[in-house]
Amino acid sequence: MTYCVGMQLRQGLVFLSDTRTNAGLDNISSYCKMTTWEVPGDRVMMLMTAGNLATTQAVVSLLEERNLAPSDRDPTLLGVPSMFQAARLIGQTLRDVIAEQARTGPTAASTFNATMIFGGQVKGGPPRLYMIYPEGNFVEAQSDTPFFQIGETKYGRPILVRAYDPDMDFARAVKLLMVSFDSTIRANLSVGTPLDLRIYEADSMKIGYSRRIEDTDADWRAVSDGWSDALRQAFDSLPDVTL
Amino acid sequence: MTYCVGMQLRQGLVFLSDTRTNAGLDNISSYCKMTTWEVPGDRVMMLMTAGNLATTQAVVSLLEERNLAPSDRDPTLLGVPSMFQAARLIGQTLRDVIAEQARTGPTAASTFNATMIFGGQVKGGPPRLYMIYPEGNFVEAQSDTPFFQIGETKYGRPILVRAYDPDMDFARAVKLLMVSFDSTIRANLSVGTPLDLRIYEADSMKIGYSRRIEDTDADWRAVSDGWSDALRQAFDSLPDVTL
Repeated sequence: MTYCVGMQLRQGLVFLSDTRTNAGLDNISSYCKMTTWEVPGDRVMMLMTAGNLATTQAVVSLLEERNLAPSDRDPTLLGVPSMFQAARLIGQTLRDVIAEQARTGPTAASTFNATMIFGGQVKGGPPRLYMIYPEGNFVEAQSDTPFFQIGETKYGRPILVRAYDPDMDFARAVKLLMVSFDSTIRANLSVGTPLDLRIYEADSMKIGYSRRIEDTDADWRAVSDGWSDALRQAFDSLPDVTL
Repeated sequence: MTYCVGMQLRQGLVFLSDTRTNAGLDNISSYCKMTTWEVPGDRVMMLMTAGNLATTQAVVSLLEERNLAPSDRDPTLLGVPSMFQAARLIGQTLRDVIAEQARTGPTAASTFNATMIFGGQVKGGPPRLYMIYPEGNFVEAQSDTPFFQIGETKYGRPILVRAYDPDMDFARAVKLLMVSFDSTIRANLSVGTPLDLRIYEADSMKIGYSRRIEDTDADWRAVSDGWSDALRQAFDSLPDVTL
């Protein structure tokens, strides 16, 4: 499995992903699931991927190759005029890769599907955040749905829904994401540290704060250890039920 | 979907189930998913069901029919010498019903599967709690795994894992279950109030406290409304993250 969250705030965008991949419980690896493209002053794009690793790596490689030879492979992520067109390009590439893998060679027990969170900003437009589906289509975050989750989304969702605030600063948003990831990691063995964090400050047109959060990270440990106590205290603070 | 939790405490057993069933988002009904058998002084048994409603109703009806004519349909739930034998009987009945429905008639898009939580006490043995699978086999709760969930289990699991304590009294256990159900109901439309609560006090050999918890129930409202605030305060109490 995987767990990634992309979150839209007034201040900008925050992305957090785990790194665990598995092909069965006895075959676990660590892969970075976050890819970044940057042309300082012009555009910043971040992509997080969940699903079949061969599919997601192929999509990223195809997008990278286009960027290296833009003259004969138009359009490219570095050349499109908007985030919307970038999301279309990624969606088409994803759909093509899945269709190709499903059509040829031996069939696999698992599917070739993948889902992606894509966000960033292209000069002339606002920061945008998309969820891209295996079919190649996508939806955009709005004030009603200001964050996207992919992979193992359920364990970490209740706290996101309740504590999200679009006016949070980045430090508070990262704390919220850490709580959400902690609940997920404790419940699902196929989600695991280290985590990859990227922050994009609106209108900065450059990659912002980045960090790899290891299991020994002091902030991560403080959140992970503190959340159990905090939850129990929250539970104690509720009024007693009368039977 | 469905959400049911059966919990083992030193004081006894607690069962809570929702009542929503659905055959698509446009076809929602309310059914009690909890069945109780009682011979005061001799045995108390409680069964909660998740999955195909036709399957679970058939299983319960077959078990009831056996009880009505025990002489020619041995064994029966009211006659077996132990909870273990009762769980075997239910498991066999469940497996037979699924096999029969899958073999005959038109095939359905949904499967005929169902999963069950079964608990209670037969004189001469301790209180026991089982999870029964569609294959007819089952596992028993232990101190390491003191509760079972069926249906939509993920949203409500983190708080159960963190706040469960085998020495809790029944009122506190019900409060914990209400928090777990509140998180689930807010996230999944196919889980809904009213809830059915049953408590079995160890060695009492009779059905204990029972209650149907409507959406307007004062305790339920206090827990549901209070939990959002309590969670946000718990979140605030965590140390800030340094970026």
